Amino acid sequence: MAKPNAFYAQSGGVTAVINASACGVIEAAREHRDRIGHVYAGRNGILGALHEDLIDTNRETATTIAGLRNTPGGAFGSARFKLKGLDENRAEYERLIEVFKAHNISYFFYNGGGDSADTCYKVSQLSRKMGFPVHAIHVPKTVDNDLPITDNCPGFGSVAKYIATSTREAALDVESMAETSTKVFILEVMGRHAGWIAAAAGLAGADRSEAPHLILFPEVPFNKRDFLKRVRQCVKDHGYCVVVVSEGARYRDGRFLADAGTTDAFGHKQLGGTAPIIAAMVRDELGFKFHYAIADYLQRAARHLASAVDVEQAYAVGRAAVELALAGENSVMVTIDRKSDKPYRWTVGSAPLSRIANREKMMPKRFITKDGYGITTACRRYLEPLIGGEDYPPFKRGLPAYIRLKGVPVAKKLKAFRPG
Amino acid sequence: MAKPNAFYAQSGGVTAVINASACGVIEAAREHRDRIGHVYAGRNGILGALHEDLIDTNRETATTIAGLRNTPGGAFGSARFKLKGLDENRAEYERLIEVFKAHNISYFFYNGGGDSADTCYKVSQLSRKMGFPVHAIHVPKTVDNDLPITDNCPGFGSVAKYIATSTREAALDVESMAETSTKVFILEVMGRHAGWIAAAAGLAGADRSEAPHLILFPEVPFNKRDFLKRVRQCVKDHGYCVVVVSEGARYRDGRFLADAGTTDAFGHKQLGGTAPIIAAMVRDELGFKFHYAIADYLQRAARHLASAVDVEQAYAVGRAAVELALAGENSVMVTIDRKSDKPYRWTVGSAPLSRIANREKMMPKRFITKDGYGITTACRRYLEPLIGGEDYPPFKRGLPAYIRLKGVPVAKKLKAFRPG
Repeated sequence: MAKPNAFYAQSGGVTAVINASACGVIEAAREHRDRIGHVYAGRNGILGALHEDLIDTNRETATTIAGLRNTPGGAFGSARFKLKGLDENRAEYERLIEVFKAHNISYFFYNGGGDSADTCYKVSQLSRKMGFPVHAIHVPKTVDNDLPITDNCPGFGSVAKYIATSTREAALDVESMAETSTKVFILEVMGRHAGWIAAAAGLAGADRSEAPHLILFPEVPFNKRDFLKRVRQCVKDHGYCVVVVSEGARYRDGRFLADAGTTDAFGHKQLGGTAPIIAAMVRDELGFKFHYAIADYLQRAARHLASAVDVEQAYAVGRAAVELALAGENSVMVTIDRKSDKPYRWTVGSAPLSRIANREKMMPKRFITKDGYGITTACRRYLEPLIGGEDYPPFKRGLPAYIRLKGVPVAKKLKAFRPG
Repeated sequence: MAKPNAFYAQSGGVTAVINASACGVIEAAREHRDRIGHVYAGRNGILGALHEDLIDTNRETATTIAGLRNTPGGAFGSARFKLKGLDENRAEYERLIEVFKAHNISYFFYNGGGDSADTCYKVSQLSRKMGFPVHAIHVPKTVDNDLPITDNCPGFGSVAKYIATSTREAALDVESMAETSTKVFILEVMGRHAGWIAAAAGLAGADRSEAPHLILFPEVPFNKRDFLKRVRQCVKDHGYCVVVVSEGARYRDGRFLADAGTTDAFGHKQLGGTAPIIAAMVRDELGFKFHYAIADYLQRAARHLASAVDVEQAYAVGRAAVELALAGENSVMVTIDRKSDKPYRWTVGSAPLSRIANREKMMPKRFITKDGYGITTACRRYLEPLIGGEDYPPFKRGLPAYIRLKGVPVAKKLKAFRPG
């Protein structure tokens, strides 16, 4: 019988280092050619499996695969596509197993966040029931840092480093111009549910006397009056004020600031953006000159400023997934286990998917200062190691030289999938 | 008689490398301690001279001054403050000369864009008339790259590198998600009058089949219908579309897109932002899922990704200013003169301020493709050397270690200035 093959797919929003995990999976598999034949990747994530649209990574050179470690985005294509529950749409799961069977795939490496952990778990359960057991290993990835059990999530450290650096840099700009120009600068960062990324901005200053002066977390209900009072005081004390706001900042009743019901002249709901809402308050109530930036995808794609720790961990969890699978493990997620803060030491571990799926890790209360606008020493102790070290990509003619795959498709063996 | 002193000030919007010019000025002056006593810097630019608020840079260590080369923002404080015309407010100019006289300042190094070149010129003229001739040398700086005669302006190359890199990175993100998520990504960049920064984004792709697919320049009147047609076609051809829009993009009648008259629910004019205007068009007319980023100050403060060529030039024009002054030059701006494109070779020169002041250098027509949405080969040839090489700042605990001055004030000798 032919050697079993492996399947790898990327899921959900991509990161600066998700390809480093792909690199880890593929390089580790190549070291075990006696036990793993091909690593097939799903084109556009799990959709690639459903539609039998597979990329044969064995057709990529070692140089290309090594280059994945330095390349942001999802090289194989990712997807925002959540499989329905088993009862609701069993056909999709059965199709996955069918594709795995047709291509002799015994290892399923799924690289994503909470939703994909759930999918991974179900595939593992169902494949056994269907008599074609697949080793399903979840490779964690999310800029939101909200997976349980693991100390942190690959992808987060690099966004954290980018946001902390950008905050420090922009603050120097604002400070130098404040006498005659912008007095309030607002930076909007990602994090719809959890304030981890906003918290990372807090590393930019040694303490609250330095920028960012105010952080608006999704975890802390927004109080307009109190906020504006603090902005005014900050400008009085320091001459300027730097505010970092999470896109998920919300009022006490749960409404997002970004959904505050403002509409444009045509009656259209105003387009996203929490920063412009804050900026409008500062303008209308305090009269300060302001500027705002919305980092959006720039923050999660900024491989040029990746955290070396993050790159190493992303790569390590990819490798570990293969090693766990070959050791007979199944239905687990690779975890990062912190051994000490200073010096920072960590190892790779694993946790059963049954304990991961559909659970979000929020910022603990003890990480946010009592006033609700800053991060505590405990939070700094947690965050600081995650942005440690630089891991610059190679540059060519002034720009980062990111790789592009050949992406050779695997010949199809099944009929087209018609979802029910 | 005591050795003459020098005065240095930063003017207008700061850049990632304006402090490198300060470093050049101060280090060169320190090499000529026999001829230049103190280098005094104006706190908050020219305001520091008007209010006799001077910082004694001689009180800063060599390490701190060397650190200026790696630190973004304006370390001495900059100002958006244009002196009025000589006829309108002669008192301001006379006050400058009075302060220079009181502190035995014979050298005036002014680091800024077009407006400050004009001030520098007037100071030079008037000081001679007033019998206290000052050597006034303009040190060019502007992210807008719009000063005449000089081949390029220090500050621009680093923004160009940041925007081209960020475009390339975000494009990889969008491409990998386009099948099930964002199809159109819009990045708003600086450049109210000239499209140099928007043009730099064009370096992100090898040609128009790669992102950015469409660039909106201030120089090319915006045609909504044509633009949307191209976005639709781009998504059809590539599965996604990356648009880079200059904040100065405008309609044929000269109105900025950002001033398109949309108001929020309270009747307030919508706050700046060209990207959300474009995004709304894409949403309303094409129905594509979109995301947008507004880089704002992040782009001009991003010292972590400075162009090595830019840093070197910024430093060189600072040094050259001192050398020109000591050689007896007056009323000139330091220029960067390009000798060849490939390999890129340049030298430092100078040009009379009478030829610089109040002239803007726009993008030449031959740099924009006929369809109005891309850059030509000639433009690439011009831009590419300017983003060449990396010059990373030192990092400490995961973040760039930027210096902070002691900023020791010089004792005042005059009465407070009361502007007329």
